[in-house]
Amino acid sequence: MKRVQIDPSIDLYFGENFLLGSLQSYLKGRRALLLADSALLELYAVDLAKKLGVELVAVPSGEEAKSVAVAEHLISKLCQKGCDRNTFFLAFGGGVTTDLVGFIASIYMRGAPLVLIPTTLLAIVDASIGAKTAVNTSYGKNLLGTFYPPKAIFADLAMLATLPSRELLNGWAEILKISLVCDIEIWLLAKERKEEAIFRAMKKKIEIVLKDPKERAIRHILNFGHTIGHALEKISNYQLSHGEAVAIGSVAESYLSMDLGLLEPKLFEQIQHAYSQFPLKLPKAYTKEALLAAMSFDKKREGEDLYFVLIDRIGHALPFEGRYCKKVTPDELKNTLNWMESCRFYP
Amino acid sequence: MKRVQIDPSIDLYFGENFLLGSLQSYLKGRRALLLADSALLELYAVDLAKKLGVELVAVPSGEEAKSVAVAEHLISKLCQKGCDRNTFFLAFGGGVTTDLVGFIASIYMRGAPLVLIPTTLLAIVDASIGAKTAVNTSYGKNLLGTFYPPKAIFADLAMLATLPSRELLNGWAEILKISLVCDIEIWLLAKERKEEAIFRAMKKKIEIVLKDPKERAIRHILNFGHTIGHALEKISNYQLSHGEAVAIGSVAESYLSMDLGLLEPKLFEQIQHAYSQFPLKLPKAYTKEALLAAMSFDKKREGEDLYFVLIDRIGHALPFEGRYCKKVTPDELKNTLNWMESCRFYP
Repeated sequence: MKRVQIDPSIDLYFGENFLLGSLQSYLKGRRALLLADSALLELYAVDLAKKLGVELVAVPSGEEAKSVAVAEHLISKLCQKGCDRNTFFLAFGGGVTTDLVGFIASIYMRGAPLVLIPTTLLAIVDASIGAKTAVNTSYGKNLLGTFYPPKAIFADLAMLATLPSRELLNGWAEILKISLVCDIEIWLLAKERKEEAIFRAMKKKIEIVLKDPKERAIRHILNFGHTIGHALEKISNYQLSHGEAVAIGSVAESYLSMDLGLLEPKLFEQIQHAYSQFPLKLPKAYTKEALLAAMSFDKKREGEDLYFVLIDRIGHALPFEGRYCKKVTPDELKNTLNWMESCRFYP
Repeated sequence: MKRVQIDPSIDLYFGENFLLGSLQSYLKGRRALLLADSALLELYAVDLAKKLGVELVAVPSGEEAKSVAVAEHLISKLCQKGCDRNTFFLAFGGGVTTDLVGFIASIYMRGAPLVLIPTTLLAIVDASIGAKTAVNTSYGKNLLGTFYPPKAIFADLAMLATLPSRELLNGWAEILKISLVCDIEIWLLAKERKEEAIFRAMKKKIEIVLKDPKERAIRHILNFGHTIGHALEKISNYQLSHGEAVAIGSVAESYLSMDLGLLEPKLFEQIQHAYSQFPLKLPKAYTKEALLAAMSFDKKREGEDLYFVLIDRIGHALPFEGRYCKKVTPDELKNTLNWMESCRFYP
């Protein structure tokens, strides 16, 4: 098990089969509550809560749970249990659980201490890094949220043993995206030394987040694939997973980079090839118009314009005078939208 | 008009009859929305929005508006109007409006720029200072919220001309409380040079908040009068105003300071005398038991214990080894609760 001090106030624990022991020493003398994805109760959470000697609260599963209504319901339970602003909230689950519990912790009595225990590969490399919390509204995904760093992150790869392969691919889609915008090494490691690739992707992401916690500049690069990805998720009514949507979005935004003359066609082909292992499918309700409408609620939007992160090679997003994203008109987007409809890997 | 740079990112504008001109120059080239207390639409807000050339959104009046449900409803309106995370949200009203709009701004797309335009004396010296946002839940007042500093505060005393005298007294109750815990000068100025007293109270409060933004230590002193005050507000079902409740709370917690042997009886009498101008009344539903139950959801609580800020003279809260609050058992509270029931200024 590796322990990394991210900054003076965040500890990252990474490895395999260390969770119980490390959590026990971490929580010594602290009041805590395990808020666990209800799909994980039988498999892990009931047992873990018992061994830690903490109360267990079940968090509804699935993207629909990331709502203000569910947050409010869980907050009532926390009030009933007499949680105060020193109670540690342990978020145990995938990105839905860590985003939702993170949001609750950030607003509960103006902030209760938060510990993330991501149980999916995607949550390990995405939701648990970056101090972003979120819930959805009917106007879009993650439209409400806060920047709220956890006190600690426990990423135990042993959890991944029970993960469906679709979920594993979601995580790899995110890792490849991190590689595309900032580090070709991860791209190479991903083929052979998977644990190292995962840890390096986490570290790279953390470095970027620490440079720009409020997402004013370089942190934008982590949104590569997300402008189109989020819109696809929304169109699919969240039947498409975040990882699948970002995988499609990453290839599409690589196409856009090529179409705008920034990325060589040869490199685009390499990217497309690497993603061919993913079962990428556009949602049934997809039309160009639906995509454009859904993108109009993107958080990177300013006024009527859409902004995209763009790359000029594998491992490098363009800085665009320190903004790290570029205005793209609907007209400039046309070829990419056409390509999305016709592309062979969307059956 | 005085302009004070609070820290690199917050501007405080203070004076009389300067609001329109200053706001016009401040907002030049920025997209903004005026979110105004619906009780102020006719009197000020419709006209102000028109002159500023910004859209107007009415915020429901009264403490009941500080709810998750109202926040969610307003957020939908903001989405419909296409607000993005660069849209300036101008909160125009008393503390209910600034707390609620502040909360919304803090979670809207993980944070939209916030400008506070407090229109009551209490909001000028209390809600607008300190970067706290809040909504209530059925378990207590301000149980949900964030720490979220505004970009600017415009405090124009001309607004106070139309303020009912009950509302003015609310503000003075807060100013006296600030004086009690940290500055006897304000206590003296309050008699003769009211505008100076208001400005000095704001400045003192800002100094404390900057020293301890997250309320881990010295900022606790600003909660003097609030442990009892919040509970009284709750018991009264928010018919008691925040200022009235804090006025009663301040006298009661001064009594507690005296009862614990920290404050001389002579000084307690001076305090009691200064507050005799206030029409202090306990809520009808008041019982000792109801008060204790309501206090059990106080945010300063840890486990079963209650914590109080205590003073040893006018202008000085006791540090208690840097915690600035002290554990008080229900037993130690008994005399204070008895005194509350029997005290002559509660008719």
